[in-house]
Amino acid sequence: MAGYAPELIAALQAKANLLRIHSIRMTTRAGSGHPTTCMSAADLVAGLFFYALRADVSNPRHPLNDRVIFSKGHAAPLLYAAWAEAGAFPIEHLDTLREFTSDLEGHPTPRFRWYGAATGSLGQGLSIAAGMALAFKRDGLPPRVYCLMGDGETAEGAVWEAAAFASYYGLNNLIALVDINRQGQSQPTMLQHDLQTYRARFEAFGWQTAVIDGHDMAAVLDALTAAQSAERPFAILARTLKGKGASAVEDKEGWHGKPLPPDLAEQAIAELTPPPDLQAAAAQLRVLPPYDAPLPEPVAPQTPSLPTYTLGQEVATREAYGDALVALGNTDPRIYALDGDVKNSTFSEKFLKAHPDRFVECFIAEQNMAGAAVGVAECGKIPFASSFACFLTRAYDFIRMAAIGRANVKFCGSHAGVSIGEDGPSQMGLEDLAMFRAIPDAVVLYPSDAVSTVKLVAEAARYHGIAYIRTSRPKTPVIYPNDEAFPIGGCKIVRQSPNDVATVVAAGITLHEALKAHQILQQEGIAIRVIDLYSVKPLDAETLIRCAHETNGVIITVEDHYPEGGLGEAVAAAVNGHGVRVHRLAVREIPRSGKPDTLLEAYGINARAIVEAVRAVAQGAA
Amino acid sequence: MAGYAPELIAALQAKANLLRIHSIRMTTRAGSGHPTTCMSAADLVAGLFFYALRADVSNPRHPLNDRVIFSKGHAAPLLYAAWAEAGAFPIEHLDTLREFTSDLEGHPTPRFRWYGAATGSLGQGLSIAAGMALAFKRDGLPPRVYCLMGDGETAEGAVWEAAAFASYYGLNNLIALVDINRQGQSQPTMLQHDLQTYRARFEAFGWQTAVIDGHDMAAVLDALTAAQSAERPFAILARTLKGKGASAVEDKEGWHGKPLPPDLAEQAIAELTPPPDLQAAAAQLRVLPPYDAPLPEPVAPQTPSLPTYTLGQEVATREAYGDALVALGNTDPRIYALDGDVKNSTFSEKFLKAHPDRFVECFIAEQNMAGAAVGVAECGKIPFASSFACFLTRAYDFIRMAAIGRANVKFCGSHAGVSIGEDGPSQMGLEDLAMFRAIPDAVVLYPSDAVSTVKLVAEAARYHGIAYIRTSRPKTPVIYPNDEAFPIGGCKIVRQSPNDVATVVAAGITLHEALKAHQILQQEGIAIRVIDLYSVKPLDAETLIRCAHETNGVIITVEDHYPEGGLGEAVAAAVNGHGVRVHRLAVREIPRSGKPDTLLEAYGINARAIVEAVRAVAQGAA
Repeated sequence: MAGYAPELIAALQAKANLLRIHSIRMTTRAGSGHPTTCMSAADLVAGLFFYALRADVSNPRHPLNDRVIFSKGHAAPLLYAAWAEAGAFPIEHLDTLREFTSDLEGHPTPRFRWYGAATGSLGQGLSIAAGMALAFKRDGLPPRVYCLMGDGETAEGAVWEAAAFASYYGLNNLIALVDINRQGQSQPTMLQHDLQTYRARFEAFGWQTAVIDGHDMAAVLDALTAAQSAERPFAILARTLKGKGASAVEDKEGWHGKPLPPDLAEQAIAELTPPPDLQAAAAQLRVLPPYDAPLPEPVAPQTPSLPTYTLGQEVATREAYGDALVALGNTDPRIYALDGDVKNSTFSEKFLKAHPDRFVECFIAEQNMAGAAVGVAECGKIPFASSFACFLTRAYDFIRMAAIGRANVKFCGSHAGVSIGEDGPSQMGLEDLAMFRAIPDAVVLYPSDAVSTVKLVAEAARYHGIAYIRTSRPKTPVIYPNDEAFPIGGCKIVRQSPNDVATVVAAGITLHEALKAHQILQQEGIAIRVIDLYSVKPLDAETLIRCAHETNGVIITVEDHYPEGGLGEAVAAAVNGHGVRVHRLAVREIPRSGKPDTLLEAYGINARAIVEAVRAVAQGAA
Repeated sequence: MAGYAPELIAALQAKANLLRIHSIRMTTRAGSGHPTTCMSAADLVAGLFFYALRADVSNPRHPLNDRVIFSKGHAAPLLYAAWAEAGAFPIEHLDTLREFTSDLEGHPTPRFRWYGAATGSLGQGLSIAAGMALAFKRDGLPPRVYCLMGDGETAEGAVWEAAAFASYYGLNNLIALVDINRQGQSQPTMLQHDLQTYRARFEAFGWQTAVIDGHDMAAVLDALTAAQSAERPFAILARTLKGKGASAVEDKEGWHGKPLPPDLAEQAIAELTPPPDLQAAAAQLRVLPPYDAPLPEPVAPQTPSLPTYTLGQEVATREAYGDALVALGNTDPRIYALDGDVKNSTFSEKFLKAHPDRFVECFIAEQNMAGAAVGVAECGKIPFASSFACFLTRAYDFIRMAAIGRANVKFCGSHAGVSIGEDGPSQMGLEDLAMFRAIPDAVVLYPSDAVSTVKLVAEAARYHGIAYIRTSRPKTPVIYPNDEAFPIGGCKIVRQSPNDVATVVAAGITLHEALKAHQILQQEGIAIRVIDLYSVKPLDAETLIRCAHETNGVIITVEDHYPEGGLGEAVAAAVNGHGVRVHRLAVREIPRSGKPDTLLEAYGINARAIVEAVRAVAQGAA
């Protein structure tokens, strides 16, 4: 152990107790929260903030600040208290914890300016932190990323996805502080205080470790020092006690997520209050300034030169996605691509070939891919994360949290629907539209040809927030000229006449079925309007309603997706109250393996099904 | 190594090559599939089926059969070939691989009678297998569960959730065969042939291991033998080569998911075809019969005696969920409860106290909880898996696959919506209705009081398939008498008069807001109809349409959920074409922390918002 000045240790210990006192006060005042969870980690956090961390406290967006992520988001009071003690804002502001108008939410979100993500769904922080650490590495920047984790959350597999990812990419600027207080919410954790098994797990996943008593400040500082010169990601495995320092609750079960009642709070504060001289010493502690390194160059992206195609050319939208990413990456260094070992299927491999320094292979670990994308975005990049649409369901909790964190992340789901064919239902994205539509502020884009794909990928890059792009496996003909624009929120009327008997609304593979149906019906003298609803959310209700009114008040939706939450329900909800009948063609059972055309036929979403629906409507109208 | 008869080794090697030949033939004929993935695992599978496995091949549902799960579902041809060679069905049937009418799908599903789940989304099989192994243990039955895994899929965190779970519960009847062929889909895996790191990881997660050459049949048999007497779950870590045995593709990149073209297939088959004497020896190999043990007693569940409540009693639906589980468990030994370390919040802890032998604490690992529930269900149990509704998003891919696997699993999501209050958006289930509605055949139930909760939990237990029950955090008054029935697909008209100006459709917490609105409006002389849509899917469209027609054609939906895919869109879609206007009140932005009432007010889903919507309608109608 290094020989620390006893005064430093004493001051840091006092600071830790002040953080405990704040955490108790805030939660007792709010009437809810997790004080005991804060108290176990207080020494780790005091050591981190006032010994290791480098940051311009007055400028949370300083590009050379270290980052702090609390994966155990329920320790939010401790996070807020640490920044308050660091001088970020007046201590009194802590009193607003959990109030509706306060930035100090029950679990941290970016409404709190010193925090770049949302945490509180456990086991996600390490992925976000790893994404940040990777972005710093790729940019050659010095900041480190510190991630406070709980022990209970290491049961989440995503933690081990992140751990494997971090060691694979040599992220020695990533430091996890694992607060092993042995107590979960409802019972002791699986491993309790078996520190050696934690060590074995992190080391097997390629990490360096330090096993310490998390209430021994000198040991905390030693571990933080060792972490600075690590060659690999570093885990500080700290044996701690929940409720440490308050005799009424320390290491006792039944105190998870409960504020101390006022009398116990008073007693605990009395036990924890440092003597005046140590309070004074603690008040002198400062966060170190940011790294003395050149600031990164500001980015000045140029207008991309998007790829072009010829009408009728057969190109899968998933392949055009790859083309578009390459083009965007050519003129904007912020564009990143991440993929889950399907880059030769999603065609993100085109980006790997063109811009290898901005491609991140995440292997078969979609949760960590999503979390890492959030971290990369927080460092100013524009990440596109791709996999099969169905496998993005794996990351739904991460996607939900990314939205709460206001993350600027784009997702691309390929292999949408039954049109993938023989691989069968496990590989078919049939609930992805429902999943992404239910994310507030997310845009959901569903191109049908190569031209619309590249335009929509560019739109997604321009949009700040979550954007989802759904691509298809089969090749489809180019139907739009290269100068066509595809603004978010719009749609395209691709066939129309004054005599249309119905409006068929489709997107992706089903648009081409609708066009075939148009042709078949034309030969019978029946005209239909065909709309390409490439922007599923937001949705151009006005055009849909107008077209419906011009076509007997009838809309027929057709989608390679389950009926719930998809294109059909979106349209039905949007046109409600306008006297429009919506017939919805969708995949209404769990499909099976088969040839794409067989499946489109079997599940009633092909040209024949559209023709039949139109004929039924035409008869009904006649 | 044990001294195996050279004839046995030679026969098994020949059998392995026959499995390879089948896999090549089937995929070349189908024009798609993953032959090289089958070839790496063929020796493991030949050894497993014809040396270790105990099963009545003619009776896939024999309760004392060992179970085989291919977590690497893309090796489906190998699975089918092994059962065909075992005599389950004629070899010729293999020719139907991937045809629409065949049970031999691209990835295995229970349409194949010898398989009790669906796999193909990687990293899920070990959780399912662990659930089966746990059920056998709890029942004191001898079968073992064998899980064939790929190396690439060990990047999925769910694998490590399952690994930790299996060792925690001492599942020494669970044996993983990990086919480490070092190649992913798009590039080499993270660890390639670093077998020692695989060993370190599995051992750190509490497993016994054997590291072997997966093409050395004697080593395969040794490992399988060692696994039989293991004290902990056992991982056979097998170094293999993708495409093993066919010189054109063996260990070569670029052959993932590609059938061999006919000429290469022919060449490979020539290389692999055993001489006639070994073919004859291989033909003599048999699967061992099932264990010689008493068959489990048939279950004869009795009618449950459900808990009762008094009108007006304040009970949270989440608490009534716990009451109901206990009651069901009292009379039906198939009822199991699983939870993700929130049992004191979901109230599944009541079941733990009453029936500890049928409770499974899954810790903070929702994916594995869902997968284990699938495995438990496959062994004839009726598992209820509970967590906060928002954290079930973590398991969406598992839930999707459970449905494809026709699993009889119930999910309960507690802490729905903004009504949880101060903990903030990370803890609020606001997309769970959308998520579960998009699961084909799933029923989605949303009780509003204790009586409806216990009735709906009982309905869920009776329903065969996925059922989702959404519960709320706050206490709400009992509004139904104890003899009220709540059939799936129904709804309740809880307030009505001949003069109702609108129909308000609500469920859960918002039903109580609707009742308050009814009271407020009544004082103003405005009558509204109030419907409790406790069955969100399937949905009683007929009653909704009739009520709407009786109330000026107006429905107002109000839900503690995002607008997309929830109750409002379900209603809008269901009543489409019937001249009904649907006003949808829902949470339309990412909420923040605050008191429950503050949040219901802020996001426009409380009594005041309903009153305003009704007034606007009444004015519009006037």
